[in-house]
Amino acid sequence: MHVKAFEAMMVADELPCNVKFMIEGEEEVGSENLGIFVQNNHERLTADVILVSDTGMLANDVPSITTGLRGLSYVEVEVTGPNRDLHSGLYGGCVANPINILAKMIASLHDENNKITIPGFYDKVINLTDEERAEMAKAPFSKEAYCKALDIDEVMGETGYSTMERGSIRPTLDVNGIWGGYIGQGAKTVIASQAFAKISMRLVPDQDPIEITNLFLKHFESIAPVGTKVKVTPHHGGEPAVTPIDSIGYKAASIAYENTFGKKPIPVRSGGSIPIVAMFEKELGLKSILMGFGLDSDAIHSPNEHYGLFNFYKGIETIPHFFVAYTELMKK
Amino acid sequence: MHVKAFEAMMVADELPCNVKFMIEGEEEVGSENLGIFVQNNHERLTADVILVSDTGMLANDVPSITTGLRGLSYVEVEVTGPNRDLHSGLYGGCVANPINILAKMIASLHDENNKITIPGFYDKVINLTDEERAEMAKAPFSKEAYCKALDIDEVMGETGYSTMERGSIRPTLDVNGIWGGYIGQGAKTVIASQAFAKISMRLVPDQDPIEITNLFLKHFESIAPVGTKVKVTPHHGGEPAVTPIDSIGYKAASIAYENTFGKKPIPVRSGGSIPIVAMFEKELGLKSILMGFGLDSDAIHSPNEHYGLFNFYKGIETIPHFFVAYTELMKK
Repeated sequence: MHVKAFEAMMVADELPCNVKFMIEGEEEVGSENLGIFVQNNHERLTADVILVSDTGMLANDVPSITTGLRGLSYVEVEVTGPNRDLHSGLYGGCVANPINILAKMIASLHDENNKITIPGFYDKVINLTDEERAEMAKAPFSKEAYCKALDIDEVMGETGYSTMERGSIRPTLDVNGIWGGYIGQGAKTVIASQAFAKISMRLVPDQDPIEITNLFLKHFESIAPVGTKVKVTPHHGGEPAVTPIDSIGYKAASIAYENTFGKKPIPVRSGGSIPIVAMFEKELGLKSILMGFGLDSDAIHSPNEHYGLFNFYKGIETIPHFFVAYTELMKK
Repeated sequence: MHVKAFEAMMVADELPCNVKFMIEGEEEVGSENLGIFVQNNHERLTADVILVSDTGMLANDVPSITTGLRGLSYVEVEVTGPNRDLHSGLYGGCVANPINILAKMIASLHDENNKITIPGFYDKVINLTDEERAEMAKAPFSKEAYCKALDIDEVMGETGYSTMERGSIRPTLDVNGIWGGYIGQGAKTVIASQAFAKISMRLVPDQDPIEITNLFLKHFESIAPVGTKVKVTPHHGGEPAVTPIDSIGYKAASIAYENTFGKKPIPVRSGGSIPIVAMFEKELGLKSILMGFGLDSDAIHSPNEHYGLFNFYKGIETIPHFFVAYTELMKK
């Protein structure tokens, strides 16, 4: 049905729907003005759905659609013990050592199943349906190749979930940096007055970054032992976003890929974040469909970043199919 | 009895015993040549006891004698996960994060009673007699003043021991430095490939620093989870030393202090180390008596280091009493 409509569109050189373009040139410097623009132009921006092409797919012969992005809560923590650095010979064993305490506090943030122990942390996590998990599991993944590429013997993560799931549909907590005491060459027998860490949490729908940051703060302060002081400073956050695979937008995108790639795309949750997607949803009440055609091997943000001609033309070819399929499905 | 002998010595201007002087000018740069000198001069250095004046006392009106020095085992540890730094959005939750793992490993080195969990760590620890602990407990100590000086709410240490005991007669494990990942300003969502820590253990008799370093190494490697690699590099060590308070040397020193200070000195174990004391015992089979007259407030190795005239003259006055008392006690 939509194939005929597509051919009709191409012959008549006419779109079956209206298209509004919004071009953002500040994404890499934080999109500071986009939110203001959207806020001031609600009416001009009314639409049925938003299409964003800023994602990738699994492989040129394995088309996929990103259906979820993780959010982020990022904090810096500071543990203070004695008011000055101490000689470990004279004070060792007598006072709380801020580095040992910080290590203990960090260790306690995961339980034996690698679940995060902050009370309330999982309360708003939306669990995927079995259907969605089954769809996700169709994506090709070789644990052997994954481990070999990173030179590790084994993966590690939350019990009960696959590596693909751990990196996309589940929230995480990672220390991104830690420092304290003497870190130069050789030995120095000091007990540091302070120890520091940068800790980030990747969030999934419907976790709210501000709420999670507050839960972290409250919990981290509560586990600080007597004899220490704790300070938590929030850095920045971002909201998670998800596209339901039973939505018209997703279905239309799926049809479009199937038409041009010859096979049904796999819905994939990404571990990363595109903050504007959550912003569009909040400001305009609109879901975004993420139809991107890049590859992991494009090395985005890295030396020798590139984009394949195959992917460039395949995108041009696929997106008009979305316009047609979406319009057709809306009519039903 | 010894008072008469002392007066006789002062009148006659004669020592009741021979005295050999050994002057060491390299202590602050590691005493690299002293061991060689002692090894090559066993015969010239024969003696009954060694007297070292490199310690302090509790207060000018609370004379004390240092009867123990802690030893040291110092190691550097390295935990490696993936072979390169990773994006925490894409890999967070999927692989072992070396910083989180290092924190967990460090946390596991103490149990809930702040006892060290390395198997065999306490095997050679000599427990003090009740008499010795009772003597130690006579030293004046105000927890309130101690906490106030360090601006902490509470002390922390091994269950079952006082703060003075924790800092002297008990072995300890402290992280002296930790680092890994992004430690600059702001946020970076990275999973570091490696994390590092410097860890020192203060040892008490009869713990052997080489043996303890090996126990640490074996244990630390054994607790590294699959998906990580661990490397332990020993830095340097030092043996603990102790002077029995029922020895002639200690008794003679005690008499000397009592004569000049008017009160019996308190035996005190120090948390620090004077490596030559263990070396003298090993090379010459001789115990050292530590008759030092400094104060904590002298700020040794710190800005404005100083030494009181009272202490200077009190030392000159006290040490001859030791010569007399020791000779008298040896005759019995």
